Amino acid sequence: MKRPTIADIAARAGVSTGAVSYALNGQPGVSESTRRRVLAIAEEIGWNPNRAARALSGAPTNSIGLVLRRPARVLGVEPFFMELISGVEAELSARSFALTLHVVRDPESEIAVYRRWWGERRVDGVLVCDLRIDDPRVPALEDLGLAAVVVGPDEGAGTLASAWSDDGAAVVEAVEYLATLGHRSIARVGGLPDLQHTGVRTAAFTDVCRRLGLADPVTIPTDYTGEGGAHATRRLISSRKRPTAILYDNDIMAIAGLAVAGEMGLAVPRDISLVAWDDSVLCQLVRPPMTAMSRDISAYGARAARLLLDVIAGNPVVSIRDEPAHLIPRGSTGPPRPDAGAGRG
Amino acid sequence: MKRPTIADIAARAGVSTGAVSYALNGQPGVSESTRRRVLAIAEEIGWNPNRAARALSGAPTNSIGLVLRRPARVLGVEPFFMELISGVEAELSARSFALTLHVVRDPESEIAVYRRWWGERRVDGVLVCDLRIDDPRVPALEDLGLAAVVVGPDEGAGTLASAWSDDGAAVVEAVEYLATLGHRSIARVGGLPDLQHTGVRTAAFTDVCRRLGLADPVTIPTDYTGEGGAHATRRLISSRKRPTAILYDNDIMAIAGLAVAGEMGLAVPRDISLVAWDDSVLCQLVRPPMTAMSRDISAYGARAARLLLDVIAGNPVVSIRDEPAHLIPRGSTGPPRPDAGAGRG
Repeated sequence: MKRPTIADIAARAGVSTGAVSYALNGQPGVSESTRRRVLAIAEEIGWNPNRAARALSGAPTNSIGLVLRRPARVLGVEPFFMELISGVEAELSARSFALTLHVVRDPESEIAVYRRWWGERRVDGVLVCDLRIDDPRVPALEDLGLAAVVVGPDEGAGTLASAWSDDGAAVVEAVEYLATLGHRSIARVGGLPDLQHTGVRTAAFTDVCRRLGLADPVTIPTDYTGEGGAHATRRLISSRKRPTAILYDNDIMAIAGLAVAGEMGLAVPRDISLVAWDDSVLCQLVRPPMTAMSRDISAYGARAARLLLDVIAGNPVVSIRDEPAHLIPRGSTGPPRPDAGAGRG
Repeated sequence: MKRPTIADIAARAGVSTGAVSYALNGQPGVSESTRRRVLAIAEEIGWNPNRAARALSGAPTNSIGLVLRRPARVLGVEPFFMELISGVEAELSARSFALTLHVVRDPESEIAVYRRWWGERRVDGVLVCDLRIDDPRVPALEDLGLAAVVVGPDEGAGTLASAWSDDGAAVVEAVEYLATLGHRSIARVGGLPDLQHTGVRTAAFTDVCRRLGLADPVTIPTDYTGEGGAHATRRLISSRKRPTAILYDNDIMAIAGLAVAGEMGLAVPRDISLVAWDDSVLCQLVRPPMTAMSRDISAYGARAARLLLDVIAGNPVVSIRDEPAHLIPRGSTGPPRPDAGAGRG
């Protein structure tokens, strides 16, 4: 099939190619009735402005980029990213933008991808995930001047706009709930320790445990995998001061923790309460169903995409603080047993 | 930051822009030492061929497209697609290709995306997932002449190349295993019924059950969601002829089925055996761990991507039949109870 050209439109409309060009570009020089006829024919025969020609003249590419840096085996099972992408896509599709995706191994490769995309004018802007402490991507993007929105807390985002929720408030809600149920020893299985949002959660967890006079707040860092969550749970359950409740930084680790509790002879929630983060449908598929910190990740991706489109359009931009995740209590939490958690195991 | 140009390279190398152009394009007209110096400078200052200019001249865009048509809530929790994308990406990254992703609601939108990508020369080719019976995307892609590889069975793929595994052989392996354990009544919770690969599995399931003289093979179709799997499992367990084993078309539904068995008072595998398909790490995170049909989805995505790159390059192409999924027996299957499955419930 041959791509329809301006000449094809001109032949059908019985006007010059110059007149077609004026009509398509909204320039003066053709009558309103000719303009309408040209546009109708263009649509009918499926004419598209050649993207390459438009990009060459500095026009937008109508594409945004997303680089993910997690091992393939984590990406596959971590509902967060696919839900985020669904939300981003819903927003982009409505505006005929495409999403260009790349999976890399290390931060250097990620910066190289940004440089290449910028050099090739492949994307109009990028969404930046998993912001680290002193993240080299922030100054690199600032230097390039490539439009960017950080999907994460604004701490460390430099001059880039960011879209995130208040993870600290969510941690406080979960710990206060568990403390109200009677828990005095609460541990946390955290995500990758060098991520900015992990730092925010750890600080909030430490603060609220101290404020409520709970036992020393222990956070075990992990790589977000089910194996990591299982291993951390085994360590906590085997420890001399076994906690009566555990807060997890995602739902895969919480579900792994539920399995470990069972294998070590503990009933949930009678012997130990478990709270998941990111309330994917997995939380409702296990027994008991998991109490979880719930947020609408898809809506959140849509909001970050809208913010990036605003940055690309040159609109005045302010970073967005979304609703924090909220606790949805289900069957995996309850009051601790009166004799639980004291120096056994 | 200013994008480096051929003029910048020429100035540094002390040669004309024409000489730089010859050197970069591998054309005669410059000495080998000049060519080497030009290439070294180009790399040093981060020169990239302008993608738009290259696309305009008919050069490849170095991008392939993938359109997904599943509801956002399914995409988020279905490990298959993210694992497939990881594998596709691993192959593309190594060759500096980008992946352009789109999520759509219906087949008409998907064809419209292909037309737009083709018209805009945005991608060099596409991977086509979830092939349906009489899928309108196949003739649409054939008409466009856009390079395409079907990720699915070659039935219905027309003249397009395809990459898939023998799902029928995998079904036979699972059913023969269950029959050897002593199961005489095996049911199946299937995926979307109008997908080609669902059809292949259903036909194989019916055939092997008949061949082994098992009870009437029942397949309940679903939408692949956990809710769908839970609902189908409740129907099967409540039915007058309760099966003693259930085969699921993905792992989310199998895990939902495990929870339903528990909620209905059945022990797994004592009262009912369950087999999952797509052995994501989820299968090992639940208790009992799920027996599953395991395949390396990531390797599979890499292979489909390589095949598409061959199609794009104009190499002779044959459709690929990957290794079928293989049964990994774990704790969710065992021999049926002698009195199980006979007209109760």
